Amino acid sequence: MNRFLLTVEYEGTNYSGWQRQLNHKSVQEELERAIETATRQFSTVMGASRTDAGVHALGQRAHFDTNATIPSEKWPYVLNTLLPRDIRVSSCLRVHDTLHARFSARNKEYEYRYFNRRHHSATRRNFAAFVPLPMDIDLMRQAVVPLVGTHDFAAFQAAGGTAKTTVRTIHSITIDRQGDEIILNIAGNAFLYNMVRIIAGTLIGISQGKLPVDTFQQALESHDRLVMGITAPACGLTLVKIHYEGLP
Amino acid sequence: MNRFLLTVEYEGTNYSGWQRQLNHKSVQEELERAIETATRQFSTVMGASRTDAGVHALGQRAHFDTNATIPSEKWPYVLNTLLPRDIRVSSCLRVHDTLHARFSARNKEYEYRYFNRRHHSATRRNFAAFVPLPMDIDLMRQAVVPLVGTHDFAAFQAAGGTAKTTVRTIHSITIDRQGDEIILNIAGNAFLYNMVRIIAGTLIGISQGKLPVDTFQQALESHDRLVMGITAPACGLTLVKIHYEGLP
Repeated sequence: MNRFLLTVEYEGTNYSGWQRQLNHKSVQEELERAIETATRQFSTVMGASRTDAGVHALGQRAHFDTNATIPSEKWPYVLNTLLPRDIRVSSCLRVHDTLHARFSARNKEYEYRYFNRRHHSATRRNFAAFVPLPMDIDLMRQAVVPLVGTHDFAAFQAAGGTAKTTVRTIHSITIDRQGDEIILNIAGNAFLYNMVRIIAGTLIGISQGKLPVDTFQQALESHDRLVMGITAPACGLTLVKIHYEGLP
Repeated sequence: MNRFLLTVEYEGTNYSGWQRQLNHKSVQEELERAIETATRQFSTVMGASRTDAGVHALGQRAHFDTNATIPSEKWPYVLNTLLPRDIRVSSCLRVHDTLHARFSARNKEYEYRYFNRRHHSATRRNFAAFVPLPMDIDLMRQAVVPLVGTHDFAAFQAAGGTAKTTVRTIHSITIDRQGDEIILNIAGNAFLYNMVRIIAGTLIGISQGKLPVDTFQQALESHDRLVMGITAPACGLTLVKIHYEGLP
């Protein structure tokens, strides 16, 4: 058996998320179906991150094992002819069978986009969360400072999270404006369930003066989800990159 | 009667174009329906540019006349609650009834986007034309120089164009790369039918050395459409802005 690691892009709008589910369209199932068509054999596709419904990816990673003799550089062409247009395989690497897309991942990078204008955008409606009231980006930048580093992020987790430990390391957070869009970029070793969307939603409140600028500091100390703001909508979130040691 | 001038954004993917057509969804018809619902009176909506199926707009302009007493700053809110999510009214001005969205337009600006990478994009598939082979942007920049100025653009028109004169003025053309996308921006006093898409398609050939770098020069001299390249796909095109004298 050969193990391959794919880099996968998708628009999450029309999927119930990454993970296979009965009676719902998932990205995992579309990939498994394409690989089965190409190889005439079923292979489980294991994704690095189980993105929610509506969440997009530019750099999801996923591995699968196969006996098929298709070389790694051909896989993107083979699969892209079989996949729907809102899922694309952008690269494929042959990897050692000890590499696991999820458990070997060292760092992840997410981007959250707000569309901050009086009226929503016709063309960006599926790729950015609409925030009609003005957002103060200086307040946002000030607020996120305490998040960088290794902390217990227990307050930053949606009900239903199953993580054994809630300690995570955030390496960097940046916030920038590009025209009418505000882009939050966040990189860390791993993230709890809905953690980025809870940070993004809380930042809406902070940016409009509805939540104190030290909200994250309070949440890190109290471990209390209730001091935080809403979970921001899925459509604003994109999984940008997943990094493995020694791999491009 | 009061005349209002709207600024309209839309994603053209799911429409047969701007113009009303029997049995096809059009942007014009959606706006007319929303205005009729709001005012209980039918008003014809006259667009500045009759964009084709799949073409997008960030700054389409359109006027209509109504007896309704809704003030101009309320129109975007009223119409946006009635319009589908892929059409948004971003502003509204009360204008003199001699102003005509199409005939009073002084300048127009279009953007054409290419997605230039080996594999297409899952998230940008409806907003950029896929060009898998490398494009040389220096060749493109060199090629467009002769287009700027006032010329007879007879060779730059699709069959079916009904313009009385084919003389147009192009004020500026820029070509830039942003990650995997190449962006052609073109501003002029007016454009012939399919003119921007013919320029964009010809630039694909030029950028890959399949057409000579002086193709546009030849076409301006010979008036021969056949020296030019393909008409580039509609999805790459966005109507960015329409300018009227004395109006914001």
